[in-house]
Amino acid sequence: MSNSLGKMFTVTSFGESHGRCVGVIIDGCPAGLPVSEDDIQKEVDKRKPTSPIATTRSEAEKVEILSGISEGYTTGAPVCLLTWNTDIDSKEYERVKSLPRPGHADYTAFVKYGGFNDYRGGGRFSGRITAGFVMAGAVAKKLLERLNIEIIAHTVEIGGIEAAKKDPAEIRAAVEKNSLRCADSKAAEEMLKVIEKAKAEGDSLGGIIEGIALNVPVGLGEPVFDTLEGDLAKAIFAIPAVKGVEFGSGFSAARKRGSENNDSFAIENGRIVTTTNNAGGILGGISNGMPIVLRAAVKPTSSIAVRQDTVDMVEMKNTTIEVKGRHDACIVPRAVPVVEAMMAVILCDFSLRAGIIPEVIK
Amino acid sequence: MSNSLGKMFTVTSFGESHGRCVGVIIDGCPAGLPVSEDDIQKEVDKRKPTSPIATTRSEAEKVEILSGISEGYTTGAPVCLLTWNTDIDSKEYERVKSLPRPGHADYTAFVKYGGFNDYRGGGRFSGRITAGFVMAGAVAKKLLERLNIEIIAHTVEIGGIEAAKKDPAEIRAAVEKNSLRCADSKAAEEMLKVIEKAKAEGDSLGGIIEGIALNVPVGLGEPVFDTLEGDLAKAIFAIPAVKGVEFGSGFSAARKRGSENNDSFAIENGRIVTTTNNAGGILGGISNGMPIVLRAAVKPTSSIAVRQDTVDMVEMKNTTIEVKGRHDACIVPRAVPVVEAMMAVILCDFSLRAGIIPEVIK
Amino acid sequence: MSNSLGKMFTVTSFGESHGRCVGVIIDGCPAGLPVSEDDIQKEVDKRKPTSPIATTRSEAEKVEILSGISEGYTTGAPVCLLTWNTDIDSKEYERVKSLPRPGHADYTAFVKYGGFNDYRGGGRFSGRITAGFVMAGAVAKKLLERLNIEIIAHTVEIGGIEAAKKDPAEIRAAVEKNSLRCADSKAAEEMLKVIEKAKAEGDSLGGIIEGIALNVPVGLGEPVFDTLEGDLAKAIFAIPAVKGVEFGSGFSAARKRGSENNDSFAIENGRIVTTTNNAGGILGGISNGMPIVLRAAVKPTSSIAVRQDTVDMVEMKNTTIEVKGRHDACIVPRAVPVVEAMMAVILCDFSLRAGIIPEVIK
Amino acid sequence: MSNSLGKMFTVTSFGESHGRCVGVIIDGCPAGLPVSEDDIQKEVDKRKPTSPIATTRSEAEKVEILSGISEGYTTGAPVCLLTWNTDIDSKEYERVKSLPRPGHADYTAFVKYGGFNDYRGGGRFSGRITAGFVMAGAVAKKLLERLNIEIIAHTVEIGGIEAAKKDPAEIRAAVEKNSLRCADSKAAEEMLKVIEKAKAEGDSLGGIIEGIALNVPVGLGEPVFDTLEGDLAKAIFAIPAVKGVEFGSGFSAARKRGSENNDSFAIENGRIVTTTNNAGGILGGISNGMPIVLRAAVKPTSSIAVRQDTVDMVEMKNTTIEVKGRHDACIVPRAVPVVEAMMAVILCDFSLRAGIIPEVIK
Repeated sequence: MSNSLGKMFTVTSFGESHGRCVGVIIDGCPAGLPVSEDDIQKEVDKRKPTSPIATTRSEAEKVEILSGISEGYTTGAPVCLLTWNTDIDSKEYERVKSLPRPGHADYTAFVKYGGFNDYRGGGRFSGRITAGFVMAGAVAKKLLERLNIEIIAHTVEIGGIEAAKKDPAEIRAAVEKNSLRCADSKAAEEMLKVIEKAKAEGDSLGGIIEGIALNVPVGLGEPVFDTLEGDLAKAIFAIPAVKGVEFGSGFSAARKRGSENNDSFAIENGRIVTTTNNAGGILGGISNGMPIVLRAAVKPTSSIAVRQDTVDMVEMKNTTIEVKGRHDACIVPRAVPVVEAMMAVILCDFSLRAGIIPEVIK
Repeated sequence: MSNSLGKMFTVTSFGESHGRCVGVIIDGCPAGLPVSEDDIQKEVDKRKPTSPIATTRSEAEKVEILSGISEGYTTGAPVCLLTWNTDIDSKEYERVKSLPRPGHADYTAFVKYGGFNDYRGGGRFSGRITAGFVMAGAVAKKLLERLNIEIIAHTVEIGGIEAAKKDPAEIRAAVEKNSLRCADSKAAEEMLKVIEKAKAEGDSLGGIIEGIALNVPVGLGEPVFDTLEGDLAKAIFAIPAVKGVEFGSGFSAARKRGSENNDSFAIENGRIVTTTNNAGGILGGISNGMPIVLRAAVKPTSSIAVRQDTVDMVEMKNTTIEVKGRHDACIVPRAVPVVEAMMAVILCDFSLRAGIIPEVIK
Repeated sequence: MSNSLGKMFTVTSFGESHGRCVGVIIDGCPAGLPVSEDDIQKEVDKRKPTSPIATTRSEAEKVEILSGISEGYTTGAPVCLLTWNTDIDSKEYERVKSLPRPGHADYTAFVKYGGFNDYRGGGRFSGRITAGFVMAGAVAKKLLERLNIEIIAHTVEIGGIEAAKKDPAEIRAAVEKNSLRCADSKAAEEMLKVIEKAKAEGDSLGGIIEGIALNVPVGLGEPVFDTLEGDLAKAIFAIPAVKGVEFGSGFSAARKRGSENNDSFAIENGRIVTTTNNAGGILGGISNGMPIVLRAAVKPTSSIAVRQDTVDMVEMKNTTIEVKGRHDACIVPRAVPVVEAMMAVILCDFSLRAGIIPEVIK
Repeated sequence: MSNSLGKMFTVTSFGESHGRCVGVIIDGCPAGLPVSEDDIQKEVDKRKPTSPIATTRSEAEKVEILSGISEGYTTGAPVCLLTWNTDIDSKEYERVKSLPRPGHADYTAFVKYGGFNDYRGGGRFSGRITAGFVMAGAVAKKLLERLNIEIIAHTVEIGGIEAAKKDPAEIRAAVEKNSLRCADSKAAEEMLKVIEKAKAEGDSLGGIIEGIALNVPVGLGEPVFDTLEGDLAKAIFAIPAVKGVEFGSGFSAARKRGSENNDSFAIENGRIVTTTNNAGGILGGISNGMPIVLRAAVKPTSSIAVRQDTVDMVEMKNTTIEVKGRHDACIVPRAVPVVEAMMAVILCDFSLRAGIIPEVIK
């Protein structure tokens, strides 16, 4: 396993779904940044399940600061944050320990870790691990505020229902107004209906999340290998269920001509801008000053109630499984704050690498 | 800049489009692997421009081994490979040094490197850099052969023309039969027409490349952050012009139900397989033994002959540009071997990390 | 700050002397290793202060496993271990917050972290942090047992009193028999006297620790930069108060002739050995199968009761300080298990890098 | 093998003693730094053998810039520098290929790389590799000049002859005045005599090099693991033949009392200094503004003409060897510029990590 991300702002994840806790260590955070447990709790709370579409597991998810923050400020030392697991019910998992759930990591983890992996609740492969990612993102966001960088993610598609295009101001205003974190409230209503229908049928839905970073200065990204696209994509793919990442016009660029897809440059208020943003704010792996725009494809939740074909890994024979547990019929809305967190972590890392955040915040 | 990729099989890229050379260092390659200049040349030659759609720049691209290989075998020491630049014509670039080409890295590189970057031919941001990637990939492929892993990439879409689905055997047999590296020869003919039309109009086209890795054992990938998807995507995004990466059903998974998208497990010939491969061979960031399948969206070539709006970065005023130079109307076919190379490098790295390649090849 | 060590077996340290806890995360530990809290506690207990020479601070130092170990075996997931701080008394530190103690990190930490560092008890710069190192070392030792590698450290000099040379079997038998961890019991008695004398005079003493690793196979170390000497030395210099590290004949090699210092090779019981071990088991940065032997110079404890000249960093004026707190008159014996721990961590890392420890222990 | 050093200023070494070339890639060097081939040649020339004590191998060692420098300035791209090998004579090595030279890496390399290592001239384990280190150091020094940091190394002991203590100004003035790079010209004369005597007897001598860095600002070093001592020591141990590294009072600190060894703080010309420098300029792993002082113990050259016992690794039997080749009777003077280079590289790396060198030099 490899559980650290970031070169200068380094996030190390630990904990399991049904273990004692889920947490994170942030190493490399400058000293002098004001951070409270409330700042972090606020972000973590966004990940909480929202009825009627989500799991009935109900974790208090109270964030605790174990190190690195003293008298309300980061000290320069590694920041350890965690939340204790409380509402654990592992019965269902014990029953199907040797039956890998289709679409889940049960099988690959069993082989890679020789059956020693903590399979309860998916162990390290549970979405619950992302609570730690969000804690790290909360600190990263506080740091990015100093650079006036803002990150907004929102649901743009669920079960084939697409949200209407909105500008960042509209998204910011609307995103927390419905449980789906969709800035188009009408689309959100329709999305909710299809989710409820899928859920009633013991099934699940996927969708697409868009993440936007505003006011990113020109120059973040370290090509040729540590491109802004590459490192953002890598971070986003750490979110369970993400199977695709694109920037700007993304896959649709493949169907455009150069003359359509190229963003013209122009002088605007004394600075260089592009008049369109098909590049998603990134040219040559480096931010160009326009909004960073990415989209992540989230597959439908693997854990579904309908009967599926699987195998018994120990007895090596075909069988079937009905996944009981407590699962979200659509994970997309809860993954929205995680996308924000991962973007924040990577942008912090590149800001530190570019030397635009000092060692001490004043 | 950050020009190294891979933790155990580490590739460091160097050189510029119009500098003295383009090359690569491979550190961490086990000793005892038979590698000849021919093995590498063969792969590099696949990147060569093919008329009528590509650049008229004609580099011999003769590969030289500078270190790390002795008497035909790797020695365990860093392998330095390079090709000298010969057919350099920088005139056109001098003329437009302060006018960033839309869609290209000229602007971001100018800001990030304070104007000191080698702008000639795009410098470090030229597709020519990928000749080095392919050299590294050639060595990686030789190593993967020992594990019986095979990598095949091919063009699946250009200018909106989609190739018909083929199985790996058909792709392998057909991919080098046309200049577009498209296994569907009929589609290839159509693609060629639309490229020629775009070229005649001074314009360019993008497309989609699919990369497949066969016989990958279960267990490659190091979640939660160094997932197989994440590290492959990061590597693929280092290829200039790539703006999206997806695995298996990818973005289309977002529109499916769990019951459709989940791949059922079954016992087949005494081993566990999935009956479909929507996961693209990866579950929980770890290979599951099925073919790894990824698709990369390649934007249309930025350098086009038609007049475009841009700015003068020095005089800070609006102006226009017609990019002369020698450019590919569609870079997709030449990027196909680069996708193979990046996949090979990452799979080598994870194989070494998983301990399934020994320190000495025998 | 940079708080991670090791490339494949990666140890991340967190916590502060007077914060909530001191701990460590181990990432990359193979699955299937049996590890209990007792295994770790046993090593941590060796760091405990021993009267009459050591601090009167009395931490229970009860080790807790927070993640990565389930049902007595490592799971492949990151192992988080910690001990809560309980016996904290920060009064003395508050009083002298702006007066840096000579020989301590108070001044450099104040400047580097802009005064935001947790200065209480030395914060991140306290010897107490090494409790986490020892936890990591305990897991590393369990892993090395699988390779039959044994690590023994012992006190070879304190306050100028040198211990007689002993062979590994004698050292193993004697090292825990006195509070100074010195295998020469007579020398230990003398050492104790000089420590008590220094302590009575409000002063402190340093010394030298020798670390030995037995049964290390030929081939560990990754030159030219990740040499076995280099990575071991780096790890040992992370122990507060260490100011010198040497291998084999070390500094005395500088005074020898090649014919004296070179270790002849010979065949012994069918394997190649050297007839002397001036190389300390390392040739060309790679283990040669002989015992790894290193020595670390530990400076006298900086915190002493006698009045010393210092400055007020806030008021920028000269002043004096008498360090009260609760300090060891000689830290050497308590650093012995830390030397063992650091050696164990680095040897685990290189064993994993060389591929001689599998991903799953069976 | 692992041939990269430094996190932000990353040096990758390649090449072999008797291969085509020896070189280095520097990744992460800021753009805009004026560097000429002469700047680098000047440093590399300091490594040249000086009769009568050194090898008769005579390499022109003409440095070539392959990438990353354009029109006299660094471009931000990776800087590739190399020198071609010309005066190669591998006959002697062929004859004794299976007989490991005592004290050399022949045996460990043979085992680790399965006999595929390039054994000619020691291959990767030759002192010749350090020509690349010095090239990297030359660029690092140019960068450090911008911070007013100066690095001076000199010979302080050879064959038991100790040089008298000198202050930095005296050392700077005298160090290049004799072939031993010893600032004490009288001691140098004696050293030369003992070297000539050893050489005449087919033997070799070791010694001690001191490296000093002046004007280092307070705050370089990233504890707890990337301490300034730890990373400097690791870099110095990459120099073949170094077997010990100490800082400030080093091993002699082990024999001092705290009241002797602690450096008192004082205000001097408005800034905080220490009145002595037993700490060697480093407290808590962080520079304290005083000169960084380290000493490296260099063992006597392993390759000696006198007959030594060794084994035949292939036939597994005892035998003897007389090393012919062309070897330095004392490598110390030629290692002096290498110590400077390694110190420069590490100080650059920490300066970039601390954010005190900008991305673009102006």
